[in-house]
Amino acid sequence: MKTELICIGTELLLGHQNTNSTYIGDKLSGIGLPLNLQSSVADNRDALCAIFQDALKRSDIIITTGGLGPTFDDLTRDAMADALDKKLVFNKQIMHKIAAFFASRDIDMPSENERQASIIEGAQIIENTIGTACGMIIKMPEKKTIIMLPGPPVEVHAMMKDTVLPFLKEKFSRTMAHGCTLHVSGLSESEVNERIQHIVEVEKKLEGAQIRFGILAHTANVDVKILIEGKNGLIVDEVLKKTKQEFYDALGDNIYGENEQTLENVTGYLLGKNRCTLAIAESCTGGLLSHRITDVSGSSLYFKGSVVAYSNRIKESILHVDEKVIAEHGSVSRECALQMAAAVKNLYKATFGLSITGIAGPGGGTSEKPVGLVYIALVCDKGDMVEEYKLGGHRLKIKEKATMHALDMLRRKLSRRD
Amino acid sequence: MKTELICIGTELLLGHQNTNSTYIGDKLSGIGLPLNLQSSVADNRDALCAIFQDALKRSDIIITTGGLGPTFDDLTRDAMADALDKKLVFNKQIMHKIAAFFASRDIDMPSENERQASIIEGAQIIENTIGTACGMIIKMPEKKTIIMLPGPPVEVHAMMKDTVLPFLKEKFSRTMAHGCTLHVSGLSESEVNERIQHIVEVEKKLEGAQIRFGILAHTANVDVKILIEGKNGLIVDEVLKKTKQEFYDALGDNIYGENEQTLENVTGYLLGKNRCTLAIAESCTGGLLSHRITDVSGSSLYFKGSVVAYSNRIKESILHVDEKVIAEHGSVSRECALQMAAAVKNLYKATFGLSITGIAGPGGGTSEKPVGLVYIALVCDKGDMVEEYKLGGHRLKIKEKATMHALDMLRRKLSRRD
Repeated sequence: MKTELICIGTELLLGHQNTNSTYIGDKLSGIGLPLNLQSSVADNRDALCAIFQDALKRSDIIITTGGLGPTFDDLTRDAMADALDKKLVFNKQIMHKIAAFFASRDIDMPSENERQASIIEGAQIIENTIGTACGMIIKMPEKKTIIMLPGPPVEVHAMMKDTVLPFLKEKFSRTMAHGCTLHVSGLSESEVNERIQHIVEVEKKLEGAQIRFGILAHTANVDVKILIEGKNGLIVDEVLKKTKQEFYDALGDNIYGENEQTLENVTGYLLGKNRCTLAIAESCTGGLLSHRITDVSGSSLYFKGSVVAYSNRIKESILHVDEKVIAEHGSVSRECALQMAAAVKNLYKATFGLSITGIAGPGGGTSEKPVGLVYIALVCDKGDMVEEYKLGGHRLKIKEKATMHALDMLRRKLSRRD
Repeated sequence: MKTELICIGTELLLGHQNTNSTYIGDKLSGIGLPLNLQSSVADNRDALCAIFQDALKRSDIIITTGGLGPTFDDLTRDAMADALDKKLVFNKQIMHKIAAFFASRDIDMPSENERQASIIEGAQIIENTIGTACGMIIKMPEKKTIIMLPGPPVEVHAMMKDTVLPFLKEKFSRTMAHGCTLHVSGLSESEVNERIQHIVEVEKKLEGAQIRFGILAHTANVDVKILIEGKNGLIVDEVLKKTKQEFYDALGDNIYGENEQTLENVTGYLLGKNRCTLAIAESCTGGLLSHRITDVSGSSLYFKGSVVAYSNRIKESILHVDEKVIAEHGSVSRECALQMAAAVKNLYKATFGLSITGIAGPGGGTSEKPVGLVYIALVCDKGDMVEEYKLGGHRLKIKEKATMHALDMLRRKLSRRD
């Protein structure tokens, strides 16, 4: 069963991020129908028709995203009709739904939205509860199936979840596939690779289940991906459990989470579980650490707030860092980091004060204190700690890495309290 | 001249973000060799070999990224050698460079890195100044060219800039292509479409230059993309200038920037130009607004800092919001937003105090004050303003939209001071 995804939109070839391919790739691998090929093509009726025809030859399941909107560059409907040699037919029911969508928002329906009521003859409609572009499922001879979705990611997510995934699972999924991504901090990609070398080969089999591995470095963490496929769901689960344990033995508490877990929600969970609260003082990260912490819903239960102090004066006036400390050691120093963390802990009456001070660049570095030098301090009633980091990369990478290290310092501290 | 990009890595089909396709797509369109096709394929030697053979049939320039690393799943070298029916040869010079790379970092070279010294016979080497995987340029009959790059985005960026783009420009670029992306705030995609409908058609020609348009909605802004291609650079520039002016006439000051410009660097520029400083008080956005502001290098010149106040108590104790205001109106109210902005302005001695308070959800909403209700206030010595927004989407979207609206409120205020 070959599955192919075609993402439509000139912008995807000219430099726009494609988040539909990430989402759909992830979800399809979860139901044992991993993508064999993903491609991106421009909004050009002939080019689209050609790639649809190629796809019909080589793949069994073809999913398209994009080009179903009302604007001048939305051509997927027409091109697919060309490729399949089918007609577009006007669907009154869909027209009523589109009209109702605008009416509920007190907006006059723009006339161009009428195009969205044209569908390929014989297609099954995929309802869109968020936008005006409906999707389509078209069944072709030899069990080939075409699924057309609009481009906006929120609409893709809803339609995949509500209609497409249940449909594919029921109709095509013959093997069970269970996967797991382990998130690792504190080790480089090479270090992870070395520790897991005895476990991984490109493909291996165990008890009739196929095991695949992948390893991928991010800004300040490494992901190890495991995918187990087999006919028997119980064996697949058992092999996954066994394989995961091997990785935990090799990587220990450098594994901070699995799958959807992020460093901020793992750390947040530990704060909540230990009934601790957190306050943050940021300099070079400029609010990113607080932003990451508050991306977790429910974070107001443990996060009190933060002070971003973007100058020495503000560090002195609001965080009460000692003038002498800044004069003697500079604001990028162990001493300043510790005072910032202690001050914000007191100011917000929190269990932990966490601080970051450093040089994100590109300006502001010296030979003694180069761009990328960062100090991170963690203070609580039972003691304090401060670490020095020399981080590479441009401004945003340095902000991201420093933020990850700060979260990881807090996570490790909280794990040891368990 | 058909250009094709093949991104290699199983992770790209299982849900990992592909940032190389964005970067390379953008850069190639800038030199008049826009991508015709982009595809992502798994780390499987046979699958790779097959797609390389297809690509050699249909495209003139083939660029690959990924699979040149030292780990078990790096198979691009072998698969390309298979597809071209060429040998891999061990290159001593490259081996010395890899050894020197590790020596300079005081690390013993892992033995698997030796694989990276194998290159396809006859290939021209693309130096990698950041990592250990060198790239290759392979010239084939009929002017077909294969360019192989490693996967890590920072290495791709450096090698594209230093070697690949100059090489392609000199060897292949026959037409001039100049493009421009206009960033629009304060209007929905449909509203933008309606205002520009008289200008755009899918493709049009003017003075021998080909004009293409695209329109794309983001979280809280809309991009309009213009691409002009032609043989004569002067005409291309002239047509671009003329076309841009038509869009400015249609969209006015809703256009906040062009190309690489972001709302935060335009706003930062205006703050600097007006010799103004900024302090921020954030509640529901949890630090995101400060993070965005400080993504701009040099922002310390106008950004003083911020207070993230994630509870009513902190709003009272640190931002001195009147207890009565919170008791009467709640912390998500016009009154509270204004007091937060005024307080942070005073605390940080800034020209502007900008505040956001709202309900990011998913919890915390009521029928009177639903999730997505946000108040944004801007205070300076000459007066104040506060706006109410009802934002849709999940937690992160609400944080992002509120942040964009706050930046835009400040931008419009500063533009009017000009």
